[in-house]
Amino acid sequence: MICGDLVWAKEDAKTLFRGLADIVRMDSPNRADFLAGLKPGGKYEGTVGIYRHNASADRIGVFDKEIVGAIARTGTIKWIAHNGAGYDQIDVLECKAHGIYVSNTPGAVDDATATTALYLLISTFRNFAQSERTLRAGLWKTKHKAASAHDLENRTLGILGLGGIGLRLAEYCHKAFGMKILYHNRNKVQDAPEWCEYFEAGRLNEMLGQCDALSVHVPLRKETEGLVGEEMIRSLKKGAIIVNTARGKVIDEAAMIRALEDGHLGSVGLDVYPNEPAVNPRLLEFPHITLVPHMGTETQDSQWKMEVRALTNLRDYLVNGSGSDVIPEMK
Amino acid sequence: MICGDLVWAKEDAKTLFRGLADIVRMDSPNRADFLAGLKPGGKYEGTVGIYRHNASADRIGVFDKEIVGAIARTGTIKWIAHNGAGYDQIDVLECKAHGIYVSNTPGAVDDATATTALYLLISTFRNFAQSERTLRAGLWKTKHKAASAHDLENRTLGILGLGGIGLRLAEYCHKAFGMKILYHNRNKVQDAPEWCEYFEAGRLNEMLGQCDALSVHVPLRKETEGLVGEEMIRSLKKGAIIVNTARGKVIDEAAMIRALEDGHLGSVGLDVYPNEPAVNPRLLEFPHITLVPHMGTETQDSQWKMEVRALTNLRDYLVNGSGSDVIPEMK
Repeated sequence: MICGDLVWAKEDAKTLFRGLADIVRMDSPNRADFLAGLKPGGKYEGTVGIYRHNASADRIGVFDKEIVGAIARTGTIKWIAHNGAGYDQIDVLECKAHGIYVSNTPGAVDDATATTALYLLISTFRNFAQSERTLRAGLWKTKHKAASAHDLENRTLGILGLGGIGLRLAEYCHKAFGMKILYHNRNKVQDAPEWCEYFEAGRLNEMLGQCDALSVHVPLRKETEGLVGEEMIRSLKKGAIIVNTARGKVIDEAAMIRALEDGHLGSVGLDVYPNEPAVNPRLLEFPHITLVPHMGTETQDSQWKMEVRALTNLRDYLVNGSGSDVIPEMK
Repeated sequence: MICGDLVWAKEDAKTLFRGLADIVRMDSPNRADFLAGLKPGGKYEGTVGIYRHNASADRIGVFDKEIVGAIARTGTIKWIAHNGAGYDQIDVLECKAHGIYVSNTPGAVDDATATTALYLLISTFRNFAQSERTLRAGLWKTKHKAASAHDLENRTLGILGLGGIGLRLAEYCHKAFGMKILYHNRNKVQDAPEWCEYFEAGRLNEMLGQCDALSVHVPLRKETEGLVGEEMIRSLKKGAIIVNTARGKVIDEAAMIRALEDGHLGSVGLDVYPNEPAVNPRLLEFPHITLVPHMGTETQDSQWKMEVRALTNLRDYLVNGSGSDVIPEMK
């Protein structure tokens, strides 16, 4: 198997694959070298699976048609175990067309990412980000007005996409703050708790009109790009907050900025941006919003869990013919 | 009754005291004017109670022996309804000696202050404060290491002082994150949930040795000044976090700074400081700690609840002879 750099689970990897497969480090400095390595006689010949991390894109680029095609032509690689919940850097439809399975690591990031969303919710409800800057600037809380800050207790949270992360955030907010939880999903989540109220597409605007805050948890796909656009934003209650820990491109950034400018949105809390690591300079001009640099999964615990879970998917494929986290598009 | 400025509950006040007492605004620009007003023939003559806010200290100073003495000499004022959980600006023992009751507003601030403590916990566990600054400085997350960040799930939180605020934080952390909750109090809290483990004074160091984080919730009194000092701090597990939303002087700041310098403390999250609004400049030199400017009760909801609750204590005293939030020292 080809393995991107492991940081936390190097020892776990040895144990997981002992007697099953050799671990070949993906050391290609560029795309040409990677593609050459996959060819007959190349350094990756005989590979049966790939452990992939987004960091590899810095060297070989995203897994687009060209790379997926080269992987398919090996004839031996049938599984790509991606490290992360979001797999928008992989052309999964192309994988499917070639009979290559893709797994992600959904559960492993739930706690860390939902905690990031909770942090952004608290910060924006309470105006904490700005208060930290005024304190460090030696101004104490000069311009702070309690009138613009709110308790979370008993407020209404809308969840866009009730997957593992959205559900974990719902649990935090409901159990800790007694918040009312509404959600929209393509389909009703059958095992969702009874205190999560479902709104189908036809009732989405009705849901948005009730939300004090909306938290975005849909993966980035062609059909979700710009999903949170002018219409959805304007359907929110005036003064509502949007939190995004999913992907920047799921929100129409220009529409969001217009709504911040005219005060329709009370605040936003963002962990993700359309063109990371670039951040639209216009966002920095809003002093009251909270902006963190894609910290959703940045904990020891989740990084280790993600590596182990991605590797376990590959191991299970080798042993049982399938890993447990096959992405929905493959099913 | 004498009433400090109301912001949120002006209308509520009219309703609460209709037919019971006139509301006389405390408009003294300085201490001398206030003391003169309390004398026979003064503008506050005939007063039966006082609604007090810490903001009044800016004009007439804290309620020390001089002011309490002048209040006592009126012979008519028997109740001071303080707005806030902490009443360290009132010489309550002097009040007691003169038979003047003091009430505070404990429950009203629980949600807002405990949420501030939760925010500081998340921020310090995850290193979010620093990441916000690097993003706004155009540096994305250059120096962030996931290795220094942790999920809250299943970690151990120590609560110093399980009153209303400490208990609310315990609920947030236990219900949302499954954190293990330990607490120390002068006495065991009889109605504490069974998942809160009590440590008496003799076992305090044992408790501290288990804590990933310690949250401080004891009021400032002579005997609690510097309570969290060298010994308690060094009894904490190496790398532990301290969060303080109570009063700055409860922690020995010099001992805390030494422990940050030598790495015994992993981080601190502070809402309160010994000499507010001054902040020790040395604190600003630690990039990874989270500092907010006494935001604990800064929400619309809690400000309104505090005003109404303080006024209700006064009303209940006038109607029933006692309000429900008499401070423990009076009992």
